[in-house]
Amino acid sequence: MHARSPLAPERFPDLPEVPGVRLAAGRTETRYKGREDLMLAELAPGTTAAGVFTKSKTASPPVEWCRKQIKRGKARAVVVNAGNANTFTGRDGRNAVAAEAAAAAKLVGASANDVFIASTGVIGVKLPVQKLIETLPGMHRALSPASWTQAAHAIMTTDTFPKGATQRATIGGVPVTINGFCKGSGMIAPDMATMLCFVFTDAKLPAPVLQKLLAASADGSFNAITVDGDTSTSDTVLLFATGQAKHRKIAGAGDPALKDFRAKLDALMLDLALQVVRDGEGAQKLVTINVGGAVSAKAARRIGLTIGNSPLVKTAIAAADANWGRIVAAIGRAGEKADRDKLIIKIGGVPITHKGEIVPGYDEAPVAKHMQGREIRIDIDVGVGRAKATVWTCDLTHGYIDINGSYRS
Amino acid sequence: MHARSPLAPERFPDLPEVPGVRLAAGRTETRYKGREDLMLAELAPGTTAAGVFTKSKTASPPVEWCRKQIKRGKARAVVVNAGNANTFTGRDGRNAVAAEAAAAAKLVGASANDVFIASTGVIGVKLPVQKLIETLPGMHRALSPASWTQAAHAIMTTDTFPKGATQRATIGGVPVTINGFCKGSGMIAPDMATMLCFVFTDAKLPAPVLQKLLAASADGSFNAITVDGDTSTSDTVLLFATGQAKHRKIAGAGDPALKDFRAKLDALMLDLALQVVRDGEGAQKLVTINVGGAVSAKAARRIGLTIGNSPLVKTAIAAADANWGRIVAAIGRAGEKADRDKLIIKIGGVPITHKGEIVPGYDEAPVAKHMQGREIRIDIDVGVGRAKATVWTCDLTHGYIDINGSYRS
Repeated sequence: MHARSPLAPERFPDLPEVPGVRLAAGRTETRYKGREDLMLAELAPGTTAAGVFTKSKTASPPVEWCRKQIKRGKARAVVVNAGNANTFTGRDGRNAVAAEAAAAAKLVGASANDVFIASTGVIGVKLPVQKLIETLPGMHRALSPASWTQAAHAIMTTDTFPKGATQRATIGGVPVTINGFCKGSGMIAPDMATMLCFVFTDAKLPAPVLQKLLAASADGSFNAITVDGDTSTSDTVLLFATGQAKHRKIAGAGDPALKDFRAKLDALMLDLALQVVRDGEGAQKLVTINVGGAVSAKAARRIGLTIGNSPLVKTAIAAADANWGRIVAAIGRAGEKADRDKLIIKIGGVPITHKGEIVPGYDEAPVAKHMQGREIRIDIDVGVGRAKATVWTCDLTHGYIDINGSYRS
Repeated sequence: MHARSPLAPERFPDLPEVPGVRLAAGRTETRYKGREDLMLAELAPGTTAAGVFTKSKTASPPVEWCRKQIKRGKARAVVVNAGNANTFTGRDGRNAVAAEAAAAAKLVGASANDVFIASTGVIGVKLPVQKLIETLPGMHRALSPASWTQAAHAIMTTDTFPKGATQRATIGGVPVTINGFCKGSGMIAPDMATMLCFVFTDAKLPAPVLQKLLAASADGSFNAITVDGDTSTSDTVLLFATGQAKHRKIAGAGDPALKDFRAKLDALMLDLALQVVRDGEGAQKLVTINVGGAVSAKAARRIGLTIGNSPLVKTAIAAADANWGRIVAAIGRAGEKADRDKLIIKIGGVPITHKGEIVPGYDEAPVAKHMQGREIRIDIDVGVGRAKATVWTCDLTHGYIDINGSYRS
């Protein structure tokens, strides 16, 4: 195990109960010994579901399964294991997913099609599915509406801390709860970040509405972060709504009654996504990159991600070196429109460039001081339009090499 | 200075004279002290020129200058300095290039438009152009047809060894010489690799023919290598033909008399490009990635570069870990067509995957042994077509972080 990230939140938040959701963690004692590595969530009848998944051409059998089931928009259970990604495992891998779903379905009294499956860990090793299935009944007996921390722990791989968040929102004056937890620290890049994220609410929302809300929210959170530019085969974000809250009926995603819910969902998703960056393998600094003056939001994000994935920018940040020349180079190669001679770069709010050259009398001292901190802010204006985007990344340190040059995850 | 790369060739090759080319190295004593950091090449009247340059939107003033002059297809001198990239230096940067060109032109008795300029080093710092100009006359007096090694040394920045190559070719039975030298070790990615490369021949070739030969050759060499995916603002490859050889007139790039010359030029360019990868910052292993079964050569190259730029693949290689799962993930996210269930991955010639899963009875021992070596070979077939491409990269080690987290280049 690696030391807890210096960027980690002080503690795991207190997650309240979400009516209609019960959770349990269990130990398969397969890849990881002496720790929880399996998570089961039971969802009340009537729960709707939405999901966004990796765009990888070598997606895992669990992702294929979820993509198929999500079209039905219904869910009764979620099973997630850590330590084995059940990826590139051929027909056995597909059979394993079906067996897991059938076993969980039997326990909760539902159809296997209502069970969502996610796996994270090593690629190309057969899933010890029998062990998973044998572990589930004990977990089912232990299901509790309070086991959020245990659930968040059970899905961790190289994570150095469990990641959770909660929000309260109102829909038409009626309070609802949104809880989420996720894992991820390496192989992180859009779309999606290499991570698993599960969000639960007691709101009563039709699946198509839920899907629209989730897609929009993922765009500004998990699709705007990067650790190493390496999208995984297993990225999954699932949102479940148990429908236990007694608010009025919601017909569409544009319903004004959803304003607060949308804002709180977005806040929760961004909170979770930033926890992934804060746990970026070897990360010592959290970097926020605001790109403006672009021709489109897509162009702004691509420029931001090019900066955020540049090994040269990331190693300079690790060294607290305000090496803005590497930012200039990254902007130049992003493949999006930018005007070199109108480019504005600020670090820590201090303007550095101006009219295609360094600001006259530029004093590096306050920038150098900012670079010593844990949270680095870079503001860019590429001088060709009005669109903007924000991207988050971390620095690239010896810790990243240590973790990835030794652990086969 | 960092230790010489373990992947370096044993020695700098003996470069013969190229009729019509004289070179000199000098010391400006600006950023680097006590070493040559300025290179002057004088080219005989009648020399033709071709060039390929970075596609960066924040290209440097020297690149802008060369792009403009190359259209004329004529050259009489080349001036290259190391330690300062003269990039993002505004109007002063453009004036500096013009002043350098004028000074060199005066010395060789030519027009400033016939002088090519390249700069490499730190971005955003004004070029000490007066020092450069003052250093040129002494260099002009020292010009020699034998100073290839000195020239190759003078253009180095973080390079741990000078890079040169030579080939003999015949055109219509008449022997010609091709010499080249280059620099580059970080900020290396297509197009171009972040590097400077200068190639000289005594062949007599019209500029448009030269341009076609160079573009084709760059595609299979400097545009097929990567160290860190960071394309620079200054990438430049220039090819000069002095026309001193007495072969018959060549009308077009397709002339059969050019067959041997093309082959030798391609070999020389690839040799130089691979020397750049062998000097990749922190590199301990040279990695060859052959991608086949793709829908197009472009798709094959993009898949190869996605693998070659993956920090997860590169750290695994550094650790001699045959972590083929990370290769599967990189192929999946490359954005090009691939069939997961037909994917073939071989490392060191040993088949690992087969029909979407690991080869039955796969024995990792010979692969692990191959991974311990200095030269790693990865063969991929993505199972959707017949096109192929080869890409070269190096591993990602602590050395990369050391070099880039401390040196502002």
